[in-house]
Order: sequence, then C-alpha cells, then structure tokens
Amino acid sequence: LTSPGTLYGVGVGPGDPELLTLKGLRVLQSAGVVFVPVSRPGARSLARTIVDRYLDPSKQRIVELVIEMHDDEAGLAAQWAANAAQVREVLAGHADAAYLTEGDPLFYSTFIHLADAMRQQEPDVSIVVVPGVSSIHAAAAAVGLNLVERDERLAVLPATYEGDNLAEVLDNFDTVVLLKVASAMDRVLHLLEERGLSRHAVYVSRCGWPEEQIVTDVLSLRGRRLDYFSLLIVRRPR
Amino acid sequence: LTSPGTLYGVGVGPGDPELLTLKGLRVLQSAGVVFVPVSRPGARSLARTIVDRYLDPSKQRIVELVIEMHDDEAGLAAQWAANAAQVREVLAGHADAAYLTEGDPLFYSTFIHLADAMRQQEPDVSIVVVPGVSSIHAAAAAVGLNLVERDERLAVLPATYEGDNLAEVLDNFDTVVLLKVASAMDRVLHLLEERGLSRHAVYVSRCGWPEEQIVTDVLSLRGRRLDYFSLLIVRRPR
Repeated sequence: LTSPGTLYGVGVGPGDPELLTLKGLRVLQSAGVVFVPVSRPGARSLARTIVDRYLDPSKQRIVELVIEMHDDEAGLAAQWAANAAQVREVLAGHADAAYLTEGDPLFYSTFIHLADAMRQQEPDVSIVVVPGVSSIHAAAAAVGLNLVERDERLAVLPATYEGDNLAEVLDNFDTVVLLKVASAMDRVLHLLEERGLSRHAVYVSRCGWPEEQIVTDVLSLRGRRLDYFSLLIVRRPR
Repeated sequence: LTSPGTLYGVGVGPGDPELLTLKGLRVLQSAGVVFVPVSRPGARSLARTIVDRYLDPSKQRIVELVIEMHDDEAGLAAQWAANAAQVREVLAGHADAAYLTEGDPLFYSTFIHLADAMRQQEPDVSIVVVPGVSSIHAAAAAVGLNLVERDERLAVLPATYEGDNLAEVLDNFDTVVLLKVASAMDRVLHLLEERGLSRHAVYVSRCGWPEEQIVTDVLSLRGRRLDYFSLLIVRRPR
C-alpha cells in the first residue's frame, strides 16, 4: 500500500476562527477528508468548532479520529497505529487529508503521534505541517502585553509544576508562561507573592473564545475553581 | 487631538505570505494607511515583502516609519515619540492604520515601543494586536520536528548568550530554541557536543523564504559564516 495523497497537519489557532492562516484555509477547503480528533465518538471538538464555517460536508468527508487517554504506552501505540492506518487508506485513494489541531500542530499537540505512526508504517508517506498561531501569542495579543523583546528569555511550562523547580525558572527568565495553570494556581500565586511578581502576572482563559476571560488582579483567583484552558503570563519588569 | 481610528499591529508571519492570518489579511486590506518599519528611508522591509501582494497602493497609503538603532534611551524615545505622533495624525483623520511586523507583534518585535509611545501621548488611543505565526512555530513545521509535548518545557533565548548560563538552560529544558544564533554558533556547538546533544539539534535559516535552509548535521556549520536570520532548535530525546 502506497499513499499518493498528502496528510496536512493544520494548526487552526487557539479559538478565533479569523486566526486561521490563508494556507490553513486553502488546505482545509481542498482536502477530500478532514480528520477531527475527539476524545470519544461523538464528542465535541474545539478544533472543529473553530473552522466549521470553512468546511463543506457536501464536498468533503469529515471523519472523527478517536484519541482516548491510555495509561500504558502499548495501548497508546495501538490506538495511533489504527488511526494511522485509517488516514493512510484515505491517502491511498489519491485524496489529500487534513488533520485539525488547535493552536499549532507541533506545540503541545497530539499530531506528531499520528505522523510518527504513519511513518512507521510507510517511511515515505507525504506529511506537511501548516503552522498556526499558538495560545501564547494569542493570549499576549488579547492582553496587549509584550511577551519578550531584545535579549529577553522566555520559558513555557505546561500543566502541573511538581518537581519542576518553578521558583528557579521564575528567577531566571524574563517571561514565564504557565500553560494549563488551573490546578496549580494557588501554589503558583504563593511563589509569585514571595517574589513580588503577582502584579506582573496576567491570567487568560479560553483565549479567543466568546467566554474568554482576562484577569490582571491574579491574587483574586486564589481558591477559585478555574477553567482547564487557562494560562498565566508572568513578565518581570525591565 | 483625539484619535477615532484604530492602530492594528499585524503579525504577518515569518516569511511565507500564506502564513498571514485571515484577520491579518482583512485588517491590512481595510486599513487606510499601512505603516512599514524600515531601518532607513527607502530600505527594504521584509515584512512588506511578505504581504506586498495583498496591498493596493491605489486605495491605501503605504508609509515608511524609520526605526534606526540608537545607543541611548533618549534618542530611542524621541524616535518613537515622533513615529507615534505620525500614526496618531492618521487616526485623527478617522482612518484605521496597520503596522506590519514579521512573525508576531509581541514576540521580539518593535511594535510595543510604538504602542507605548502612542499611549503616553493619548492614554485612550485604540490599539489592537493581530497575532501572527512566529518563527519558532514556522521553523518547527519546516523541519517537521515536534517542539514540545505533554509535560515538556520550552526555553527561547535570543541573540548572543554571554552570561546567559546557556549550559544550565540546555540541561534543564526539554527543548531550547536559540534565536539569531549565527554569531554564537561555535560556542553553542561546543556546549551541544559536551552534552551529546549535537545530533538532536536542527538549524533553520530564512524560514519560509525561497532561500530557506535546513541543516540537521549542525556540526558542519562550525566556522561557517551564517545568516543573521537563523535559529537552532535543540530537542532532548525523551
């Protein structure tokens, strides 16, 4: 089985449909099949919601790829192998396919797993990445906050920060972006206060969505239940 | 003087004209005046080259804003104050204006200096940032290299790395992107070799331009004269 078609990993940006690139739009609209990653069959896909207005189900097939959480690497590998085979079948039928990812396909996305699994099955398979606007740039734009300039250094840390020597990173970088900060917020706020940085932090949740929230008084977030899709930008004053 | 118009800081992406966002295109085409930063009058602007095909000089004014290097903060401030006044004059005439920046307007760009100077002159002036695809995402896409995933940490360091404890950053982050790496390359290669990381680094110059270069055998770059617009992605194997 060889695959004359190409798979495009398309970054659709973090929420605002207008932050799709022209290349992303062209690729999405010319793809015979658009693969949409979902956490279970029929689940809502944020990436699809962002670009739904650009798709035409009368001319192209929209296909869910189920990507479930797996505790074991073997289960995960089997899932990606099955998904890869499904995508390759489309390419073998001489159609191009697009795989939607929020933000950018190579920035905390699952796209690479699909690409790796496809290359394992067929080393020469044609895969192209269409980069997108990532959440860190969209959040900075929403706030109007300069992320970095001149000789400044940026650190990006995801999820929980257990054992991550976050304090050291806060001390050594000009700007620190903490992704998916919700569950660690109280501990983060403590570290910021210790360093006099709490007034130099901004919280952004659901960036680019109608429910977007920007909070500059970050200490007011203590003890509150926060959105999973939230980040904190900490920018040390020059 | 009040300014009823809006200034849009538009990120045009790092080189490929198709990496402009739909929002960027709409804003550029509806702006009465497009301001193009140049290093001296008549100099070539990379940002303008990227989006020239979308502009229509018969319907909109394209205006150079000269941004020269200044050793002193006062000279720099005076320059931005003059540029800010020029932009505000356009907005006062009820036109919207766009300011072009390569990549993203809040990621190693000069846009914030214009915005700050305008707000100093008129606190309520209307300024909107249109984020763009930054060089780190476009370079990762060109290479097909995952930048970060899951709980990984990313560091971005610009320019020279004197006193930057680069070794420590290489040891503590999963992925390190070194921007404008050309002048520091030999020292960087030495650090990479010490750590067995030279096989896990990729060099990209002029990403998205016809003369784009990708080099995976980074040791071959030793002692070579390199392009100013070049970066290195170092990704520690999992």
